[in-house]
Amino acid sequence: MSLLQHLLSPRSVALVGVSNDPAKTAARPLRFLRQAGWAGRIYNVNPTRREVQGEPAWPSLRDLPERPDHAFILTGTDAALAAVEDCAAMRIPLATVLASGFAEAGEAGLLRQQALLAAARRGGVRLLGPSSLGVVQVAQGLVLTANAAFAEPDLPAGGVFCASHSGSLIGALVSRAKARGLGFHALVSVGNEADLSIGEICSAALDDPQVDSFLLFLESLRHADRLEAFALQAARRGKPVVAYKLGRSAVAAQLAQGHTGALAGEDAVADAFLRDCGMARVDTFEGLIEATPLLRRLPLQARSASPRVGVVTTTGGGAAMVVDQLGVRGIEVVAPSPALQQRLTDAGVAAEPGRIVDLTLAGTRYAVMKATLDTLQASGEYDLVIATVGSSARHQPELAVQPVLDAANGATPLAVFVVPEAPQALQRLAQSGLAGFRTPEGCADAVAAAFARRVPVARERRALPAGPGRMLDEAAAYRLLARVGMVHAPFVELTVGLPPAPITLGWPVVVKLLHADVAHKSDVGGVVLGVTDDDALHRAMAQIRDVAGPQLPGGTVDRVLVQAQQRGVGELLLAYRIDPEAGPVVVVAAGGVATEVMADAQLRLAPVTLAAAREMIAGLRCVRLFQGFRGRPAGDLEAAARALVALSGLAQLTDVDVLEAEVNPLIVGVEGATAVDALVRVAR
Amino acid sequence: MSLLQHLLSPRSVALVGVSNDPAKTAARPLRFLRQAGWAGRIYNVNPTRREVQGEPAWPSLRDLPERPDHAFILTGTDAALAAVEDCAAMRIPLATVLASGFAEAGEAGLLRQQALLAAARRGGVRLLGPSSLGVVQVAQGLVLTANAAFAEPDLPAGGVFCASHSGSLIGALVSRAKARGLGFHALVSVGNEADLSIGEICSAALDDPQVDSFLLFLESLRHADRLEAFALQAARRGKPVVAYKLGRSAVAAQLAQGHTGALAGEDAVADAFLRDCGMARVDTFEGLIEATPLLRRLPLQARSASPRVGVVTTTGGGAAMVVDQLGVRGIEVVAPSPALQQRLTDAGVAAEPGRIVDLTLAGTRYAVMKATLDTLQASGEYDLVIATVGSSARHQPELAVQPVLDAANGATPLAVFVVPEAPQALQRLAQSGLAGFRTPEGCADAVAAAFARRVPVARERRALPAGPGRMLDEAAAYRLLARVGMVHAPFVELTVGLPPAPITLGWPVVVKLLHADVAHKSDVGGVVLGVTDDDALHRAMAQIRDVAGPQLPGGTVDRVLVQAQQRGVGELLLAYRIDPEAGPVVVVAAGGVATEVMADAQLRLAPVTLAAAREMIAGLRCVRLFQGFRGRPAGDLEAAARALVALSGLAQLTDVDVLEAEVNPLIVGVEGATAVDALVRVAR
Repeated sequence: MSLLQHLLSPRSVALVGVSNDPAKTAARPLRFLRQAGWAGRIYNVNPTRREVQGEPAWPSLRDLPERPDHAFILTGTDAALAAVEDCAAMRIPLATVLASGFAEAGEAGLLRQQALLAAARRGGVRLLGPSSLGVVQVAQGLVLTANAAFAEPDLPAGGVFCASHSGSLIGALVSRAKARGLGFHALVSVGNEADLSIGEICSAALDDPQVDSFLLFLESLRHADRLEAFALQAARRGKPVVAYKLGRSAVAAQLAQGHTGALAGEDAVADAFLRDCGMARVDTFEGLIEATPLLRRLPLQARSASPRVGVVTTTGGGAAMVVDQLGVRGIEVVAPSPALQQRLTDAGVAAEPGRIVDLTLAGTRYAVMKATLDTLQASGEYDLVIATVGSSARHQPELAVQPVLDAANGATPLAVFVVPEAPQALQRLAQSGLAGFRTPEGCADAVAAAFARRVPVARERRALPAGPGRMLDEAAAYRLLARVGMVHAPFVELTVGLPPAPITLGWPVVVKLLHADVAHKSDVGGVVLGVTDDDALHRAMAQIRDVAGPQLPGGTVDRVLVQAQQRGVGELLLAYRIDPEAGPVVVVAAGGVATEVMADAQLRLAPVTLAAAREMIAGLRCVRLFQGFRGRPAGDLEAAARALVALSGLAQLTDVDVLEAEVNPLIVGVEGATAVDALVRVAR
Repeated sequence: MSLLQHLLSPRSVALVGVSNDPAKTAARPLRFLRQAGWAGRIYNVNPTRREVQGEPAWPSLRDLPERPDHAFILTGTDAALAAVEDCAAMRIPLATVLASGFAEAGEAGLLRQQALLAAARRGGVRLLGPSSLGVVQVAQGLVLTANAAFAEPDLPAGGVFCASHSGSLIGALVSRAKARGLGFHALVSVGNEADLSIGEICSAALDDPQVDSFLLFLESLRHADRLEAFALQAARRGKPVVAYKLGRSAVAAQLAQGHTGALAGEDAVADAFLRDCGMARVDTFEGLIEATPLLRRLPLQARSASPRVGVVTTTGGGAAMVVDQLGVRGIEVVAPSPALQQRLTDAGVAAEPGRIVDLTLAGTRYAVMKATLDTLQASGEYDLVIATVGSSARHQPELAVQPVLDAANGATPLAVFVVPEAPQALQRLAQSGLAGFRTPEGCADAVAAAFARRVPVARERRALPAGPGRMLDEAAAYRLLARVGMVHAPFVELTVGLPPAPITLGWPVVVKLLHADVAHKSDVGGVVLGVTDDDALHRAMAQIRDVAGPQLPGGTVDRVLVQAQQRGVGELLLAYRIDPEAGPVVVVAAGGVATEVMADAQLRLAPVTLAAAREMIAGLRCVRLFQGFRGRPAGDLEAAARALVALSGLAQLTDVDVLEAEVNPLIVGVEGATAVDALVRVAR
């Protein structure tokens, strides 16, 4: 039997520590399983009772008549370890641990979790949790959970596989989805992921034909490598993934505090990670629930242009809200072309020409809506058509909801925003597999998230040696960066006190202290700009020796770097680092003061393609400074994009582990883009 | 009888053009009024039928046995004028016009609307619409509307007065509110506001004791003066106003296009207007519906510090979503103080110390939730406490919803986010007048909007003369700005060709072309910087004469302005203008290149207080550049705030109408802030 079978289709389960007291949390799984009519064998384990909730009980796992496929350990924190040890002794393949008080509870808890995991591994037991509220497989009635929400009767079954860091939220997801007629295949509360992670669990479900999509509620990017591997396979199989991740406000908080970290804060990393992995990251709770039918219709694909979204409506005000919310998220609704407008007229549709196909004048009638949808779908002008349905959705679904249902299989995907309170209409849409949205915000959120997904590419993730690593000096940094194709301003290294070779860089030059331990050379008086001849060069070297020397670890300046001074249209900052969760990432940001103050930065997983690098640069607000701003010459943004690609290629060097690199600034000229300062930190 | 009585409590209504065909829009009002059992007298007017829907009909308004209080004109566009003329002839006090095809339909439509209005005015008829779907007064059953949504039976009555530019949306508002147990006092579809505007209609309802709050759906700020007058009175009476306004995406669009207009675009004006008028502007459709109970509990008041919002929860994941969404909107949830934490412990509440009072460990029990709420409410540490209720809200409201209901009248206002699908819980909260929220986004939106309101102050709004006005030259601009207290760099005016008086400004100076018609002096070579002595001054004047002169309207340069060159910590841009809708507004923005590229600007209605000016400056991202950034000296932001107050005072000049003024840049020094360029446009 596979992991997935042990998890969701066990032949038998043991409920360790199941309670006879119906008010207790540990009483719920037995009650829920019986309520749902689960057909498997249940073994109640309770050291103090021969009977639990009217059913037989065994004093310990070791006394059971067979080895169960899955043990759900409902004991308190302290007793959980012994229970897992029993599982290990019996070689039970899978144990789910409900108790909290482990890694989330400080140092002592972490030690408890390590002991738990070690015990499981000794017996080949896979562990779900600890702090897992359990699992539910809806169609089979495997309601193996202590979540009170699963007292809910008549759960609809569907194709969505849900995995969540928050155990309590799966209850809310189920009730909210049910109200829309949306069902789940299974729900898994993953708890602390001591062993089984969201990525591994979802990977196990990838080939289940009953699973058509994945829905993730994430509190962190823990075990991101597993998550990435899963997402890549999901994309290959065309099974969409929608994710809600807490932490949006981190941006706001960081901006408010003004830390440099805001340059590419935690949430920006999460955003890049999820999108680069091909997942649709939504921002609204209801968008999370409502997105999967949309994603099933909108294949993940590389797009060269803005998505083409059309809107048809029976109510101007309702459509305007959706259009506005899409606009906030960077999606401009596209008007029908004049030719298409003519075809609409020919089809008998009386709509004012405009961005929205507004049928208010035509009245809410089946024939009008159906003809409109057919014509828009057949036009090839849209990637998605959103139908906004007004009050008729509540009182007369035959007028404007039915034509949408009848157009569900047209050439262009559809989505529906239902303006009034109309749960029945949403349920009918769900039954037809159509994406129905209850709010303009949820609709725009899901649509924007769907189009923001990027086709994932396989990346190698290497384990990095521990420790802070070591800095390279500027010259060594340039040499390393040159290996991946970064262009830097020409330089020579000079030894202080020795007669310099003649400078052939051309004047003026800049003279800089060359020392691996000094990241901020200006701060110690280690930079002299505008050096125009040999005499000035000697003076500059003497000045750096006298001013910076006493501040250095060794007390003296041994070497300087002399570099041809560059002028350009403007500056960018490029950065590369290994995020502890997301792995290698690359950042481009506005240079100079704007870097810190304006938080004008774009981040992606590394390596990036040239197309991705272009998109990143185009996403900077400061890009306008390089596009002929106020009579300035245009900057060579193609060269800047190549530099970004080059820096991101550090992720592919196999003989050296670069932990961090920064080019600040990259001078973007009329032709070319040149690094004029570089910091590189390597492992060991 | 008052306008409000004619509108919402007429003794009799005439339905002009009422249809006998139940499928027709014009058939609805009669059917709805009868369904709702309205007690007033209905006169059906139809030129071709003696009977409509089984009731007697009259051929024209003039044939009616009495003068009705309110005529609802249901005819097509062309017949509406004659119907209004009939109303005028009969001196019917109020006519509502359903037909569209007026001001929203181009030049011809605008002329039709002017004729309609003129006809109404001739007979002293007040006009609602055209393009109004009518009005509803719930408690009396006055369902005088053609909106199909009002086929809805059993509308709950409440204290909310709704006015909407979108007629179709009032149907969606009613059904969504009903699903939450929230009721309306009345709903008015205002249409084109040819005569009666939202502001005037709401003003008429201000003193109705049955109206406790106002809910506005706005497509524009049309008739903003009336709206402002209403909002001021509503604030004085403590009747809260919540507004949703379309146009959020205007910001995104403008940013994308990179127009200078983005500096303070249309939506920024709307935002400032609504907030400065004391209205809560929400961003979500459901937040609009759900906000009024919250606003009734949270009085509009001047706040000197960030709002203190606490969160208590029975589910960590649910609360985390609210906290995250509040953070996105700039509200940081505040942890209980150690003393309060101790009082919670003393009250028997086992909660982990942290930002959220998380009761998960304590279990979902009435006593725990009630003790927690009582303790938090009594502490005085919070302006608002948000209770997040998990699955029990659906299945066992007695556990965590009931204690909130029982704490509704505590010292601190409460709001509730209900995590699962739980309409009954929301209805119970609504019945108790408590603010219940269905989504974390709606909750955070309404809370943030409530705290973002500012206490409105009365402003004089003058009618401005038409026409573009005229520019002042720079010297005249300084003199005008000096009258309101703006500090400028000292200058002298010199006539080209005459021997200059000795310069006593101190060197270096800047020499600038002085000409009212040249706004951008640098563009024509009209600026010479860094002039350090008399000889250089002569050369600079000659250069400006030779280079700029030929480009001027008159072909010669007559005068230059010589100004002491200023240095400072950084630059800001200050601007003042008369917005056609919102009236005088004042803007502060990052200076230099950042002004256009970074859209880092803050806008308020003018005039502003010193406190408001400080808040505006603090709201700029670039404020950090003036706060000792990277070893720079700190800038005198108090002086900058005084300059902003001064500029905003242009709104109060009575002898001159300033249409527009810009100080760019304002040099912010270590001490003082000085205008070194100024543009002023005055009327006539």
